[in-house]
Amino acid sequence: MPDFRDSIEQNLDGFLSELGEWLRIASVSTDGAHQDEVQQAAEWLRDKLRAAGLEHAELIPTAGNPMVFAEHVVDPSAPTLLIYGHYDVQPEDPVDLWTSPAFEPTVRDGRLYARGTVDDKGQIHMHVKAIETRMRTGAGVPVNLKFLIEGEEEIGSEHLAGFLEENRDKLSCDAVLISDTGMLGADLPAITVALRGIVYMEVHVRGPAKDLHSGSYGGAVVNPCIALAGMLAALKDADGRVTIPGFYDLVREITDRDRADLDAVPWDDEVFRAEAGSPTLGGETGFSTLERLWFRPALDVNGVWGGFTGDGSKTVLPSRAAAKVSMRLVSDQDPVEIAKSFERHVLNLAPEGVEVEVRHLHGGHPWVADTSSPIFEAADDALERAFGRKPVYMREGGSIPIIPLFEQMLEAPAVLIGFSLPGANLHAPDEWLDLSVYQNGIGALADLYDGIAERGV
Amino acid sequence: MPDFRDSIEQNLDGFLSELGEWLRIASVSTDGAHQDEVQQAAEWLRDKLRAAGLEHAELIPTAGNPMVFAEHVVDPSAPTLLIYGHYDVQPEDPVDLWTSPAFEPTVRDGRLYARGTVDDKGQIHMHVKAIETRMRTGAGVPVNLKFLIEGEEEIGSEHLAGFLEENRDKLSCDAVLISDTGMLGADLPAITVALRGIVYMEVHVRGPAKDLHSGSYGGAVVNPCIALAGMLAALKDADGRVTIPGFYDLVREITDRDRADLDAVPWDDEVFRAEAGSPTLGGETGFSTLERLWFRPALDVNGVWGGFTGDGSKTVLPSRAAAKVSMRLVSDQDPVEIAKSFERHVLNLAPEGVEVEVRHLHGGHPWVADTSSPIFEAADDALERAFGRKPVYMREGGSIPIIPLFEQMLEAPAVLIGFSLPGANLHAPDEWLDLSVYQNGIGALADLYDGIAERGV
Repeated sequence: MPDFRDSIEQNLDGFLSELGEWLRIASVSTDGAHQDEVQQAAEWLRDKLRAAGLEHAELIPTAGNPMVFAEHVVDPSAPTLLIYGHYDVQPEDPVDLWTSPAFEPTVRDGRLYARGTVDDKGQIHMHVKAIETRMRTGAGVPVNLKFLIEGEEEIGSEHLAGFLEENRDKLSCDAVLISDTGMLGADLPAITVALRGIVYMEVHVRGPAKDLHSGSYGGAVVNPCIALAGMLAALKDADGRVTIPGFYDLVREITDRDRADLDAVPWDDEVFRAEAGSPTLGGETGFSTLERLWFRPALDVNGVWGGFTGDGSKTVLPSRAAAKVSMRLVSDQDPVEIAKSFERHVLNLAPEGVEVEVRHLHGGHPWVADTSSPIFEAADDALERAFGRKPVYMREGGSIPIIPLFEQMLEAPAVLIGFSLPGANLHAPDEWLDLSVYQNGIGALADLYDGIAERGV
Repeated sequence: MPDFRDSIEQNLDGFLSELGEWLRIASVSTDGAHQDEVQQAAEWLRDKLRAAGLEHAELIPTAGNPMVFAEHVVDPSAPTLLIYGHYDVQPEDPVDLWTSPAFEPTVRDGRLYARGTVDDKGQIHMHVKAIETRMRTGAGVPVNLKFLIEGEEEIGSEHLAGFLEENRDKLSCDAVLISDTGMLGADLPAITVALRGIVYMEVHVRGPAKDLHSGSYGGAVVNPCIALAGMLAALKDADGRVTIPGFYDLVREITDRDRADLDAVPWDDEVFRAEAGSPTLGGETGFSTLERLWFRPALDVNGVWGGFTGDGSKTVLPSRAAAKVSMRLVSDQDPVEIAKSFERHVLNLAPEGVEVEVRHLHGGHPWVADTSSPIFEAADDALERAFGRKPVYMREGGSIPIIPLFEQMLEAPAVLIGFSLPGANLHAPDEWLDLSVYQNGIGALADLYDGIAERGV
């Protein structure tokens, strides 16, 4: 097996300087004012994919921002890998809290600071440099490669599903490789093997037709804020379990293999608690923090509002109250079915004297990787070689609804190997990429292609 | 007993035209831009009190808006009546919803529409015209009279308590007569014999130090919105009773006399429900709507807020949640003690994982009239003579903290005879005064002085 580490080390300054060019392009997709830069960032990537030695790279227009697509066929009988990522970034707000400007990449203490360093430009760039390194050293690429890098991930990937649907043949592959997740320490690589799904609901409670005087009506008219509080409080029992009938029916038990994975994760509840800034941790009785986050569903109130919320003491009996309630789903929980069960349950909980409406805002399926695929062995080896330790199989409490979508549309397993570190400030000021992770990650990716070529997927 | 009805009827057009002058002066105390008009409205009243025949009328400066004070002594051995009211008014907002402009008094269908017609300029004007009528007809005034009309009632009567304290001698009296309440129909006069007190609290719940990602933390960090919902829901039991220990200890039982008063009140739950626009009524089990409003304490959530409340679905585990909670008190419930009990109870209800702070915004004592005073007989007779029906003794679910203050400071009973009708839009667009009530009310007040002189207080 060739060793690309020397080549990567020798070229590292050039890689970083090139990545810096891309990071300077403020491709903020949430803000129409950056439309030119979004386009420019896509073109920049297309050119660099060509320069890295890929046969073909193009921009494909969508009703929104263009897709960057590239393809490199070495052997029709070799496995085909589709690399997905995104070239759009979050806004820089709050601007004042950046130590150095968001779009002026700056190295401090072994970290590269800028918007997009890990989410996701830096991680895509690692793939491009891994390929370039293989080409430069004459090793070439032993698998067929496709790149699909979109420009709307930060605004909900609105046109991705339609694009996958319309381009199944063009995008056909044996596995989808996604580098948009994290690892647990600079020397501890990770593969993300599960994501929670999500259902996001709104509950609207209507009492009197308009806000009433709490003196003239209080005690004889049902208060919608109190009604809502009662309904929200009843959504969990004293053990922190969700009371929706059937909610846990499709939640799988935690297996011995799962527990072995958990044991391999360096974890300190106190560090997690301090990072959250929460007085104490809490949750479903009988489970550890990591089990609660990774293996168990959750229900949260994301927002609540009703009545008078300004300064002082307006004596109002409010007309309305509402809450946003979302649930994180695991295993085989189905977001559509859970939404229906939630609605039925909430309507059952509604007291007399108010009218309740439940709205279903959006949902996404949970996802669990099939870790029996040989691609995981290849990834294990490549990451161990580059970082000196076998990767841990971690899970993610959050939801990435496009992952199950890729698997379903392209009928290929998704593999999530990501390189952001805890506290890397994704979506926040001072986003950073660890430079040793960047360097080792490029090495791991360059190796990975050989492993996939040897073992198949 | 002299009959003033003819004189009032003959002069009614002049009275209304004069009241119109006063209503045109936009003495909005909540808005500093109207400062000149506040002063002008006070001067207008002083001049009219003089013109009505009172010996002495003056403006007395305070740190805020001036007091209008007037005095008329007929006989040091006769009872002295202090008439309290206010010359300031609520703002006209929302301006667009007025059928005719707020400060252009307009008669439509037997009603005079303008800001302040019933709250409270129109009601004060009835007293002035009652006195003027007695003077004009040569009957004179058989009691000693004082007027104290303030200009800050709509902004919390900030300087009233201090003024009463500093002017006990000047204001000394045998009874305080206040016309700032309502009656139940144009032909059904009322005396308000009780007001609920109030305690207004805020509950602040702090969870994590900042808003967290609900995917990365949900299920392992206590959600402050859910914690707050649990605490609010636990403030009442399934029978709608407040669960604060000792809350009902000083609530008096409803007596047979109370029930007789209630029976005299024309009341229709369906009319009240429709007016509230509430799907159904509800409250403490075992009590009628009027009992709930007039004889029982109440607890309401006036506002609640926390987390993300904009459009869409931000996946946040909120850092904080808060609620405004107020209680209406009755009988001998003490607002300071209830505030302490509330705080203790809420802190006991707080779950692990959040920090809770309870703030006490303000409070006021409940008030019950001593209806055994002979002044009530005099009022009964005067109102019956003017309106053709004996007054009902009604209560008010709302709170007027200055009423117990007057009784305490001046050591004199307060008598509440008011003339606004249900739906008169106090504090809302299209405030109105019923012209038949205005006319009959002036007659009742003119008579009342004789009754008080005869029976004493």
